Amino acid sequence: MNTLKEKIISETEYMLADIETAVRTNLNPHFDLVSDIAGHILFAGGKRLRPLLMILSAGICGNIKKNYATISSMFEYLHTASLLHDDLIDGASIRRGKPVANSIWGNSAAVLTGDFLLARSLSIAAKTGIPAIIEVIAEITEYMSQGEIFQLVNKKRLDLSEKEYMKIIKCKTAVLFRGACKTGALITGATKDKEAALASYGMNLGIAFQMADDLLDYTSDSKLLGKKTGADIREGKLTLPVIYALGQAGSEETDSKEPDSKKPDSKDLRFIEKIIRNKNFNDNDFNKLIELLKKYQGLSYTQKLAKDYVQKAKNSLDIFISSKTKETLLNVADYAMVRKT
Amino acid sequence: MNTLKEKIISETEYMLADIETAVRTNLNPHFDLVSDIAGHILFAGGKRLRPLLMILSAGICGNIKKNYATISSMFEYLHTASLLHDDLIDGASIRRGKPVANSIWGNSAAVLTGDFLLARSLSIAAKTGIPAIIEVIAEITEYMSQGEIFQLVNKKRLDLSEKEYMKIIKCKTAVLFRGACKTGALITGATKDKEAALASYGMNLGIAFQMADDLLDYTSDSKLLGKKTGADIREGKLTLPVIYALGQAGSEETDSKEPDSKKPDSKDLRFIEKIIRNKNFNDNDFNKLIELLKKYQGLSYTQKLAKDYVQKAKNSLDIFISSKTKETLLNVADYAMVRKT
Repeated sequence: MNTLKEKIISETEYMLADIETAVRTNLNPHFDLVSDIAGHILFAGGKRLRPLLMILSAGICGNIKKNYATISSMFEYLHTASLLHDDLIDGASIRRGKPVANSIWGNSAAVLTGDFLLARSLSIAAKTGIPAIIEVIAEITEYMSQGEIFQLVNKKRLDLSEKEYMKIIKCKTAVLFRGACKTGALITGATKDKEAALASYGMNLGIAFQMADDLLDYTSDSKLLGKKTGADIREGKLTLPVIYALGQAGSEETDSKEPDSKKPDSKDLRFIEKIIRNKNFNDNDFNKLIELLKKYQGLSYTQKLAKDYVQKAKNSLDIFISSKTKETLLNVADYAMVRKT
Repeated sequence: MNTLKEKIISETEYMLADIETAVRTNLNPHFDLVSDIAGHILFAGGKRLRPLLMILSAGICGNIKKNYATISSMFEYLHTASLLHDDLIDGASIRRGKPVANSIWGNSAAVLTGDFLLARSLSIAAKTGIPAIIEVIAEITEYMSQGEIFQLVNKKRLDLSEKEYMKIIKCKTAVLFRGACKTGALITGATKDKEAALASYGMNLGIAFQMADDLLDYTSDSKLLGKKTGADIREGKLTLPVIYALGQAGSEETDSKEPDSKKPDSKDLRFIEKIIRNKNFNDNDFNKLIELLKKYQGLSYTQKLAKDYVQKAKNSLDIFISSKTKETLLNVADYAMVRKT
């Protein structure tokens, strides 16, 4: 399973090294505290996937220039800023295997460091002097904050629809992926159709990536994940596996024709609803929830949908001729589904 | 005293009306919660001073166009975003006579709404298509977050210097004033010297404005101010009146030649230090602190320095010929000192 990850890393080794340097040097913190807090999360083994997507997207359109690593770092900063504000919001305690920043330095310092990282992204964008790139960053920040707010106000809402879930994950995750890929096209002055193709690749990949993330919260193990599984449901976040299972458990009849499907049982529905309302469930309850997500195809449905989006992402690249970079972008799309963290 | 305020308002009535409309219509919230939280603070009697400064600065350089109100709203959003994050950080309870947003809607919603307002400013800046304006916004956000962080890490530091205080207020307040005035020049395509003059006006005015703010926290009354006096010292924020008084009370001899100056008394120094360490002081303690700020010229020194900056701001406008708009900008500078809220 990990071969794909290793393959991607070896194909992009020099890019990842440049990104790493750029993320460090462009932090330009002025204050040790910013360095400490931002560094706590920035250098805790993040995948640098978003900067990498920008650079690969630039690569598929033309040449990769040295300063692209600097520009790409803004996507890592945006992502990290959202994690810092998100951890505060969620009351999470562990991220990437470490205690969350706000539990060490307090809410204030975590929020302000998030603000600083946001500001750094903006400064980097402004320095490109390309209005379209600045618009991308503006769009990302606007969508991300709205997505988080929409998620917040809809916590514990038992009737959250799949459509609403899609809106949340597009805003909070996929728009950033789209923006990174689109910027790769913009920076190389690619044609409009290449720009659109890469934007579509990023958007669909981002959707698949978030769905896979939401699956991992039920199927991974805490050690591997670097945070406790079941975090979403504990925070009242209904993700697709639960939304779908709730719908199936509450329907008159399951419409699935899969052999293992069983008639819906109102006791199951009540159990899932109880878990959502009560965040202090125990491990047995959580294991039973996972069984119910399996019984009502919440996990398999999400997996199938995520795979469809991976395919859409890959199809978006059809207009590009074969190249090593294209191959890597296709591999990254597949990796979204096979990854274990 | 209020005649100056009324004069400014009557001279800028049509601008203020346009700003008000722009602040409302450009909020473009998508979600009721954002509207509620942002509106709670955005429509609680803010002075709209920052947007007004941008429009007046445009006016002194040339013609004021209708869409300038839209552009100016980004400075009100930036200011409001910083208030939302700042209130969380400070643990303040009252702002503009109302409970702070995070005490009603929770930290998460307040932080995210701040993020959203920041994102709105950025979108408006991006839409101008003028890279220099985008750089201004990037600079403001970067300085503001750094200023707040610097203030945070230096809370309760008894040896905070005047120089460090100046750094904090420049970052967290004056750079925003400067940016608003500079944008007025940029949007009208003014000459570099006019741009520099307005930037200098804004910077100096912002410094004076924050010093006056820091004075009001000791000299105003809570009802008028819309928040409790003494908030800064309760939060461990050492501002110039205290920094100067500490210096004087701790010196061998006061260097002041004012007739009411008295020899420093180490009991006074210890009392001020005790107040800084213990936020749960009572009204008597607070009144005694004010007496000591008077005894050691903390208030008069701050007032004098603020007046100097007002004068510097006014002098910056020397290169402009006389006009009604210039008159108003000079009045705004004077207003920074005479205002009671």
